Amino acid sequence: MNLATPAMPRDEAERLLAVSAFHEYLGLRLEEWSHGFVRFTFRPPPAVRSGDAGVIHGGAIATVLDTAGCFAVISAVGVDCSTVDLRTDYLRPASAEELIVTGTRLRSGRRLGWADATLAVPDGKVAATARGTFTW
Amino acid sequence: MNLATPAMPRDEAERLLAVSAFHEYLGLRLEEWSHGFVRFTFRPPPAVRSGDAGVIHGGAIATVLDTAGCFAVISAVGVDCSTVDLRTDYLRPASAEELIVTGTRLRSGRRLGWADATLAVPDGKVAATARGTFTW
Amino acid sequence: MNLATPAMPRDEAERLLAVSAFHEYLGLRLEEWSHGFVRFTFRPPPAVRSGDAGVIHGGAIATVLDTAGCFAVISAVGVDCSTVDLRTDYLRPASAEELIVTGTRLRSGRRLGWADATLAVPDGKVAATARGTFTW
Amino acid sequence: MNLATPAMPRDEAERLLAVSAFHEYLGLRLEEWSHGFVRFTFRPPPAVRSGDAGVIHGGAIATVLDTAGCFAVISAVGVDCSTVDLRTDYLRPASAEELIVTGTRLRSGRRLGWADATLAVPDGKVAATARGTFTW
Repeated sequence: MNLATPAMPRDEAERLLAVSAFHEYLGLRLEEWSHGFVRFTFRPPPAVRSGDAGVIHGGAIATVLDTAGCFAVISAVGVDCSTVDLRTDYLRPASAEELIVTGTRLRSGRRLGWADATLAVPDGKVAATARGTFTW
Repeated sequence: MNLATPAMPRDEAERLLAVSAFHEYLGLRLEEWSHGFVRFTFRPPPAVRSGDAGVIHGGAIATVLDTAGCFAVISAVGVDCSTVDLRTDYLRPASAEELIVTGTRLRSGRRLGWADATLAVPDGKVAATARGTFTW
Repeated sequence: MNLATPAMPRDEAERLLAVSAFHEYLGLRLEEWSHGFVRFTFRPPPAVRSGDAGVIHGGAIATVLDTAGCFAVISAVGVDCSTVDLRTDYLRPASAEELIVTGTRLRSGRRLGWADATLAVPDGKVAATARGTFTW
Repeated sequence: MNLATPAMPRDEAERLLAVSAFHEYLGLRLEEWSHGFVRFTFRPPPAVRSGDAGVIHGGAIATVLDTAGCFAVISAVGVDCSTVDLRTDYLRPASAEELIVTGTRLRSGRRLGWADATLAVPDGKVAATARGTFTW
């Protein structure tokens, strides 16, 4: 399915992402743009880390998972969307310098879409996961 | 109930809040510190706003609701806690200059606590609400 | 707000509730029907209880909370609705013979509504709470 | 991972499932019992269906997803557990005579576990999905 052409061109998605300076502040960069699937790298700045280990703030994690879920839906429906609700599960603390964030569209209907998003450390271990509903 | 003495002194809670520079970046300031109830003012910076209306990013909202829920539990159990999971519902877009964030502890047991958090605009209208589970 | 006339007559709501035999099986009975607020009594049968204490199955609890949230939205929008998603939090085990279930509409827009629902034992203590999104 | 020996023998899991008559009432039968993964068949009775199509009640769906998530954690930790919270997403109405319910443990720590659960119709299409936190 991910081989299908995204419903929005990649450069338009990049522009949409750049509308909010918060994405750049958090170090979020779009790496893969497929139909119903997106992948970002995430290099969180020192301000969203704390302690000697540099553990990443749960709110920064919720933000990138929200963005990934939302863009997964956008890549399938072709228009900007907004988050209706989002559940985030924090499986383990994350402190890597660079992490991987993916978003997968579960389903999209006429006005509502569902997506999963995952934050993984470089060795592939999942640090957090989210599921949300989106509308457009 | 909120008249009970908080289980952690306010200055210790302030220090805990200051451990993460992200809270200050987002313009979050503790206003009320009671047993099982907390209230913050939230003055989001331009970077987490977008569009002509300056709509606040859902991730910034999830962050302050997470923090409010977490500190509501901390105020009742007296030790730092971490978020197990959080659900955020976005009822309407918010763009006010200053907003009110409250956290209310629903229950805390031996190792697990539940809390609600709410983001309201100055006229009292709720823009977003969250419910989460916390552990310590 | 709850004094406003419900957007659907009570007898029509009763018929809607009776469409599913599951509601009667679970011992759910509508007691209050207001605009944006509903209240049920809940007398769970032995089959959804277990152990010597007769603890009520979490699934039966999720069912009645889902129903209460859904009907709270229906009472405000006047048409049948379906659940988009629901989060249930289990604060403490419940085993009372009769319990109280309430649903409160948080907001309803053109196509989406949010509601809270609560399960309380006779002394008022909350055993479980849920938040969901509904559409119609 | 699923090839690892379950942390609880299958006959003990069957006994645990049979503690609640609600599982049998709903037509839930354990088919696969692996370490961190469980699969059930689900043949919902007429009472939890409604309309000409026999659409299955969302509460019955939440119940079987809760059970599947819980047993996925049990299969990995070896002791009975209880649900802390559960989010269920209803992707599409389901009315098949027999459905498949799976549970997958995402992570389990010392006292907390996370699991995903999925309800699929015979052709493999996902009708609903849930994510929850469990404790023991």
